Amino acid sequence: MNGYTDYIITSLNELTDPQLDPACAVPDRRRIVEILKAAQVLLFPAFYHYEGMSQRIALAFLHDHLCDEILRTAELTGNCGNAQEQTNAFIQCLPQIKKVLLTDIEAIYNGDPAAISKAEVILCYPGFYAITIFRIAHELYRLGIPYIPRIMTEYAHEKTGIDINPGASIGEYFCIDHGTGIVIGETAVLGHHVKLYQGVTIGAKSFELDENGFPVKGGKRHPDIGNHVTIYANATILGGTTIIGDHSVIGGNVWLTSSVEEGTTVSYENTASRRKRHEEEE
Amino acid sequence: MNGYTDYIITSLNELTDPQLDPACAVPDRRRIVEILKAAQVLLFPAFYHYEGMSQRIALAFLHDHLCDEILRTAELTGNCGNAQEQTNAFIQCLPQIKKVLLTDIEAIYNGDPAAISKAEVILCYPGFYAITIFRIAHELYRLGIPYIPRIMTEYAHEKTGIDINPGASIGEYFCIDHGTGIVIGETAVLGHHVKLYQGVTIGAKSFELDENGFPVKGGKRHPDIGNHVTIYANATILGGTTIIGDHSVIGGNVWLTSSVEEGTTVSYENTASRRKRHEEEE
Amino acid sequence: MNGYTDYIITSLNELTDPQLDPACAVPDRRRIVEILKAAQVLLFPAFYHYEGMSQRIALAFLHDHLCDEILRTAELTGNCGNAQEQTNAFIQCLPQIKKVLLTDIEAIYNGDPAAISKAEVILCYPGFYAITIFRIAHELYRLGIPYIPRIMTEYAHEKTGIDINPGASIGEYFCIDHGTGIVIGETAVLGHHVKLYQGVTIGAKSFELDENGFPVKGGKRHPDIGNHVTIYANATILGGTTIIGDHSVIGGNVWLTSSVEEGTTVSYENTASRRKRHEEEE
Amino acid sequence: MNGYTDYIITSLNELTDPQLDPACAVPDRRRIVEILKAAQVLLFPAFYHYEGMSQRIALAFLHDHLCDEILRTAELTGNCGNAQEQTNAFIQCLPQIKKVLLTDIEAIYNGDPAAISKAEVILCYPGFYAITIFRIAHELYRLGIPYIPRIMTEYAHEKTGIDINPGASIGEYFCIDHGTGIVIGETAVLGHHVKLYQGVTIGAKSFELDENGFPVKGGKRHPDIGNHVTIYANATILGGTTIIGDHSVIGGNVWLTSSVEEGTTVSYENTASRRKRHEEEE
Amino acid sequence: MNGYTDYIITSLNELTDPQLDPACAVPDRRRIVEILKAAQVLLFPAFYHYEGMSQRIALAFLHDHLCDEILRTAELTGNCGNAQEQTNAFIQCLPQIKKVLLTDIEAIYNGDPAAISKAEVILCYPGFYAITIFRIAHELYRLGIPYIPRIMTEYAHEKTGIDINPGASIGEYFCIDHGTGIVIGETAVLGHHVKLYQGVTIGAKSFELDENGFPVKGGKRHPDIGNHVTIYANATILGGTTIIGDHSVIGGNVWLTSSVEEGTTVSYENTASRRKRHEEEE
Amino acid sequence: MNGYTDYIITSLNELTDPQLDPACAVPDRRRIVEILKAAQVLLFPAFYHYEGMSQRIALAFLHDHLCDEILRTAELTGNCGNAQEQTNAFIQCLPQIKKVLLTDIEAIYNGDPAAISKAEVILCYPGFYAITIFRIAHELYRLGIPYIPRIMTEYAHEKTGIDINPGASIGEYFCIDHGTGIVIGETAVLGHHVKLYQGVTIGAKSFELDENGFPVKGGKRHPDIGNHVTIYANATILGGTTIIGDHSVIGGNVWLTSSVEEGTTVSYENTASRRKRHEEEE
Repeated sequence: MNGYTDYIITSLNELTDPQLDPACAVPDRRRIVEILKAAQVLLFPAFYHYEGMSQRIALAFLHDHLCDEILRTAELTGNCGNAQEQTNAFIQCLPQIKKVLLTDIEAIYNGDPAAISKAEVILCYPGFYAITIFRIAHELYRLGIPYIPRIMTEYAHEKTGIDINPGASIGEYFCIDHGTGIVIGETAVLGHHVKLYQGVTIGAKSFELDENGFPVKGGKRHPDIGNHVTIYANATILGGTTIIGDHSVIGGNVWLTSSVEEGTTVSYENTASRRKRHEEEE
Repeated sequence: MNGYTDYIITSLNELTDPQLDPACAVPDRRRIVEILKAAQVLLFPAFYHYEGMSQRIALAFLHDHLCDEILRTAELTGNCGNAQEQTNAFIQCLPQIKKVLLTDIEAIYNGDPAAISKAEVILCYPGFYAITIFRIAHELYRLGIPYIPRIMTEYAHEKTGIDINPGASIGEYFCIDHGTGIVIGETAVLGHHVKLYQGVTIGAKSFELDENGFPVKGGKRHPDIGNHVTIYANATILGGTTIIGDHSVIGGNVWLTSSVEEGTTVSYENTASRRKRHEEEE
Repeated sequence: MNGYTDYIITSLNELTDPQLDPACAVPDRRRIVEILKAAQVLLFPAFYHYEGMSQRIALAFLHDHLCDEILRTAELTGNCGNAQEQTNAFIQCLPQIKKVLLTDIEAIYNGDPAAISKAEVILCYPGFYAITIFRIAHELYRLGIPYIPRIMTEYAHEKTGIDINPGASIGEYFCIDHGTGIVIGETAVLGHHVKLYQGVTIGAKSFELDENGFPVKGGKRHPDIGNHVTIYANATILGGTTIIGDHSVIGGNVWLTSSVEEGTTVSYENTASRRKRHEEEE
Repeated sequence: MNGYTDYIITSLNELTDPQLDPACAVPDRRRIVEILKAAQVLLFPAFYHYEGMSQRIALAFLHDHLCDEILRTAELTGNCGNAQEQTNAFIQCLPQIKKVLLTDIEAIYNGDPAAISKAEVILCYPGFYAITIFRIAHELYRLGIPYIPRIMTEYAHEKTGIDINPGASIGEYFCIDHGTGIVIGETAVLGHHVKLYQGVTIGAKSFELDENGFPVKGGKRHPDIGNHVTIYANATILGGTTIIGDHSVIGGNVWLTSSVEEGTTVSYENTASRRKRHEEEE
Repeated sequence: MNGYTDYIITSLNELTDPQLDPACAVPDRRRIVEILKAAQVLLFPAFYHYEGMSQRIALAFLHDHLCDEILRTAELTGNCGNAQEQTNAFIQCLPQIKKVLLTDIEAIYNGDPAAISKAEVILCYPGFYAITIFRIAHELYRLGIPYIPRIMTEYAHEKTGIDINPGASIGEYFCIDHGTGIVIGETAVLGHHVKLYQGVTIGAKSFELDENGFPVKGGKRHPDIGNHVTIYANATILGGTTIIGDHSVIGGNVWLTSSVEEGTTVSYENTASRRKRHEEEE
Repeated sequence: MNGYTDYIITSLNELTDPQLDPACAVPDRRRIVEILKAAQVLLFPAFYHYEGMSQRIALAFLHDHLCDEILRTAELTGNCGNAQEQTNAFIQCLPQIKKVLLTDIEAIYNGDPAAISKAEVILCYPGFYAITIFRIAHELYRLGIPYIPRIMTEYAHEKTGIDINPGASIGEYFCIDHGTGIVIGETAVLGHHVKLYQGVTIGAKSFELDENGFPVKGGKRHPDIGNHVTIYANATILGGTTIIGDHSVIGGNVWLTSSVEEGTTVSYENTASRRKRHEEEE
């Protein structure tokens, strides 16, 4: 219609990349967020009322739209699974997800002197919000569905500042307080009764590079955290072979790139253990 | 209606907890956010226009919906105050809240070389946004209203990454720059002319545990910060007996769990004072 | 109409400041966010579908509403440029913005072992989201338009926890991973192939104060980062004269207030270099 | 809060009537309209996409919300049926409703020289829209549910100007053309293959009055229309004992208050038959 | 920006008329509809819940937005009244409006054998809906406010097919059944206990023309209808000097352009009286 | 997923018709309404502000979405024209449409003693609303586009009760007053300066039937109305060979199925001419 308009649009569209010019529709982020909200209605109907959905409506909504989005991602990756089966498998996991979330609520309520009731945990705690979304996304990740789990956890990241990769394995009674800035990597494994404060990173140390200097995709890159471990604010634990033993306490701002035994307390002030680690790492 | 649907929903609803099965409606987060937006219209009508509300509409909206939400929380806690009186008391605080916010605007404008006008502070500074919501929530906290103040500050947390517990006491001319990752605990007390940068924690050191190993609820757990104190990015100040004297400067990344006197500058590089603290703390 | 309502509103409105009582409408944050979304539709139409906009509609939307918002800011600052010319100049930059964003996508895809495709970068990476908005805002900043660029980057800040001042200069192939808590100041200059992890600050050391004790507005206050530099999580680099040489690696949690030469690796553990910096800085 | 506001509201609320001050919530018109839209999605999913609902979501939506609204009306009338059973009974009627609607589509398509396809009947014909809603409402009426059926047909009335009382009985292959101004009363009975043009009234002649001069509620008040009857624009047929025999044609503007035999053509111009009717009626 | 776009828009905008190029904003139809909805919330709060408005919010909404719209119309006509005073005067009429509406509800309930309760009148009867809006609009018309009353009654016209000019005077106990197609002119006067069926016109006979052949604006052009008059479907009563005496009944489809005395029954079939009228009118 | 849900949905979907099971998407009624609103913004920007659209946005919106909807209808009918060319041809008609609408405004303003300004005609007159939509739809009809024109005029029908087939030809200075119930058929031709009141039908007399008893599609079925003709309320004019001569006046409720010469006044009371017509028609 218009010379100038057409010129600008053509100039923009000439700049592209086959991967960014998919022949099919990409997953719909807005819909995936709605699927999450439907799941929350199913899990805790007294607390979530997305668009006045009842549980029955939420289940039908989740069923049909999740199936559609799985189909879209399958088309995009050219790697068709059985969307209907995957959807049903996910729905069957919902009671198990709720069971674990009830332990998380208990852990958060017991873990914060400021919490006045378990209801408050659902109503107010961004940590619980992020854990809920992670546990939903993790089941989809386990079913081998691409993109959707990550879109879900990035939505939680946006809302809470808590960035948990859907590939991480996290045990029961998981407690996050404040939470902003937490990063948990794809191959991290956390036991039961783990408690994290804001700014904690459970990340990768450095990447193996291929012959072109690019990181090698895949591989175990993130630490294992044992049971009953508390990690204080802004601590950083890195590396795929780093193992934090059960009942350890990692102090605030601690930088940890090697394993510690069961029952260890690592504090920022503990210069002796730091020097030891330095020697080990050099 | 449907065997399978009913089975899933029943399986989910069997998993519950009396505290998560309230007999009454829980506070409505969406409404509480709207109450906040109505309050912003009242405070700075040139800058906030939520749904085209005039101040008169905003006041009527705030009055009736705040009263409703207070009633809901009272029902939930079984602890009925006088919602009508609490609402009126809050409304009477609004001019005082505005008066203090004007000092905060001045402090933020004067504190950032990049700020070009006071209008920019309202339009662009997440720090000011979070402080506004905190000051509103704090008045409701002082009136003894549960849940609502925390839902408000968690909304600010979501939008800004700044997590100020509504119980904290914060003086005039409060300045936050950047702000992401700031955490201020429930029993913290901050004086006038305090300036905080991103990632600062004013938190609890460790919790007193009861005979079951759970944190004891309540008690003074967070520091006191004096007047004219500046705390640089990612500094951490912990503990209910920690007092930062007036006119102190706490450097970036500093980890501080004991008091400092008036006029002290604590810097990350200052290894002498660090060693001193280590000795004190060991 | 009402004694009490009028009393409260009058009490609120008496408390004001000439700068907060503008004679004209202030920029409309909601509209500016829509302009951003229209720009995203223009740049990557397969991935962004704001309100079902086609590229042609997005271009008309962006054209007319950006022009209006520029006029509003010009009125507010009393500093009228030519809104129509500035709008057209911005639109002409869009292909160049896309060209650079394609390099950013490549850098992010190559930089993360967990990334499975370039499409995932657009769909899931908050780092890419923040960079897109920064690059749009930066062009408007360069055209001398006040307020709007900052409102844009603060929107990205809200969504991602990544706070890049629109005045910063950032080269091609810019990669952010995780991102929460990143702060990049107004006068920072970053080269090509820079990679940042969460919590990195590229900030100001301290401000020059005027005779009244207020920071002097303007001036070069933030570091220069060379090409092919990687900065790990929570590192802090401060000061307008600090220069990080090409091909340097700055370790996690490092605190750096002086320059380092090309090819330097600064690690938290590297106590020798730290001591050297201490001496230099004292 | 406010003298004047409270005065006006009190003055308004003092003026009431026990019937207008129900102790329970009244049926929700907006929700009932959504139920209709969900039913349309179920019936013709290629043509109706209310809020992107799939049939499964529409069924769950219809199930739960219809049940809720039936409960509300039961509370209002103090006449509790079994809402769950009534809802299920209605859902089981849906295939039968569709079956009849398919005959209506055929009748409308065959009856209008301007119709180019059956798809056009669903897309464009207000007559079909009103018939659809009538057939849904009629099933609920038959189940003894008050208020809801009438709210549904009044919604159709609003959208099309066609006012069919949900109590009317209407056979298959029902065709309405143009439709504005059609009125069909509660106790009217229409056969198969009836065709009505705009402005046709099938109404009551006059009401029996009780001792207070008020119409006696209930009773057969509206005509019976046979099979294969066509009634042209603005014709009026009145009275509970009026029977229009099969295969009759009633001309435009005709006023008819007595029965006609099978195969009669009554035209406005036919003064002979008119005179005869006059004599009969006098 | 674009040759072609600019050409079309310029071609369109060149075609104009000073009256269609107002220097100020025209009344906002959407807002005026919202004002109506706020008024309905005030009048019958159990039945209308526009956007969850309480009565207090509705009153504030009505107050501020009505005042704004009155100002807009005053600017448009260049005929400034006192918008604030007019608004307050209207608000003071609300209890009187409700008082009369309660009589209308009673009349409709008593007048329809199908009505099961007064609640049904508010929930389902388009006649009551149109009367409510008429009575609101009429008060604004009486206050001398232009445009707004007509926009209101045209909204009712759109929703119900009932077109009552806001200038008409209508007594208490006004009953409309079905209603589609009713037209009541600006200078019509209806007494108490008037009942109208669908398609009734109370209109103008012919207009006095000025020297240019245009109708002379203003003047009494529509009939007076006495008390306790019933007018059946599609009857037409025309002319500014036509007076229908009390307790008359006008039959369906009757065409009446001259007065009838108290207690007259005019029926379509009554050819004697018709002939008489013919003679009178010829 | 669910036996019962699947059973109901399957039962519904088994009942179908190839024409109601299109392989492609049907035209989107909601979008077509938005296209109309965009056209109104283009034509009278001071009066229509759909979603805050500027004329430029409205033009881009209209261009892209009209083109899409034309493509959809082409797919549905299997009768592909050139959607892009048809869209451009329509856009080029817009100034001509506006030119004629300005004559319509003049005619309505001059034709109603109650009209106080031309602005009121746009703001309040449903007749003008319906004419606007008719004139838009008629241009699309002339371009041979199926479905869309009819969806547009049915939208006007819904809003105003005025049902003008998009195929009708209507001259300049067209005036409709009140309008509810007007029907104008597909092959009607109206001259300039025609004025219609509510309830007027310009329709078909009877349909030619094919060998199966179905109306033959197509053919001239509706009257021709000359210039400067006024037709009063509820008059009915039928038949493809009926011609109403220039400067005729057709009285209210008149039923006319044969032609009248130039300058004729046909009134309901004129029994002589009626008898004459009866004789002609018998």
